[in-house]
Amino acid sequence: MIFETIIITQDAAKNPHIAPFGIKYDGDLVIISPYKPSVTLDNILSTKTATLNITDDVRVFAGALTGHIKNVALQANSHAGYRLANALSHSELQLIEVKDDAQRPQLMMQKIVSEDHAPFLGFNRAQAAVVELCILVSRLDRLPRDKVELELAYLQIAIDKTAGERELQAWRWLQHKIKHFYAGQSK
Amino acid sequence: MIFETIIITQDAAKNPHIAPFGIKYDGDLVIISPYKPSVTLDNILSTKTATLNITDDVRVFAGALTGHIKNVALQANSHAGYRLANALSHSELQLIEVKDDAQRPQLMMQKIVSEDHAPFLGFNRAQAAVVELCILVSRLDRLPRDKVELELAYLQIAIDKTAGERELQAWRWLQHKIKHFYAGQSK
Repeated sequence: MIFETIIITQDAAKNPHIAPFGIKYDGDLVIISPYKPSVTLDNILSTKTATLNITDDVRVFAGALTGHIKNVALQANSHAGYRLANALSHSELQLIEVKDDAQRPQLMMQKIVSEDHAPFLGFNRAQAAVVELCILVSRLDRLPRDKVELELAYLQIAIDKTAGERELQAWRWLQHKIKHFYAGQSK
Repeated sequence: MIFETIIITQDAAKNPHIAPFGIKYDGDLVIISPYKPSVTLDNILSTKTATLNITDDVRVFAGALTGHIKNVALQANSHAGYRLANALSHSELQLIEVKDDAQRPQLMMQKIVSEDHAPFLGFNRAQAAVVELCILVSRLDRLPRDKVELELAYLQIAIDKTAGERELQAWRWLQHKIKHFYAGQSK
């Protein structure tokens, strides 16, 4: 199974880097497979640490794709850099093994510290719709436009029926990015 | 915002009734709007209690629609009947106000006891796809078949990429129900 989470790393100068990642669990291990090259991969290989953040704030996922990630509130940790200030829970991770690969090495990381911060309130269809639209937006250059627009229309239903303020804001960012992308294409 | 949860009630003879519900939160209150007539409505008006169950086990949602709910494991509570044995968290609720309505009265319920049982592991696209397919399956008689099949094909992608055993089982139950429904139509 793959779970959509936020991985935060830092470079040698302690600058945080926030990235959405689909991760796998293997017992106590967290498996992250960043592409080569990527900031997350460089940072983890350099510092051997990262934080795994579980959040229902879909603005973080959408913000990372649309240039709105800069204002995300972070909080310093004991061991491994920063975590999302409003995470539902977070774990500080330590790199214990690298399975190298030409495209996507597997980083096996151990949970060192885990903390719960807020309860999960249940599935929200609008949050899931934002996550799905993030996937579409990250692949705009490889998907047919009519497929994107069809799926967007379908996902819109859950937004209209079940979204709150955070979901609506994330949705607007993603919609803006889609419009901008297709406007650029037709030039 | 609407959150997809499992509401468990009991009748006068203490028989549990398990039903998926899209609920709203209002501070410490949980707002449930069951249709008239419904077992959940009758039970809450009769006992003044219910349990709110937050679960990532999508088999409970799919099982309620497909006749596979009978074997769900329950556990007795201190105040309000039963909870899902494998809930991530649950709250025991007490009815404090009824806003009546011809179709869907609003039941305002207060959390009396809340307990966490297991951590939320992050968004999983397959779980969200099962929840969406549940919505479609509950409206088969009102949706055009080609729309259902188009959306099913779209949702299948997340199942193929991110599902675990529980999600696959729920998916099979729902697919079977869809096949059965359309087979009945063409008779």
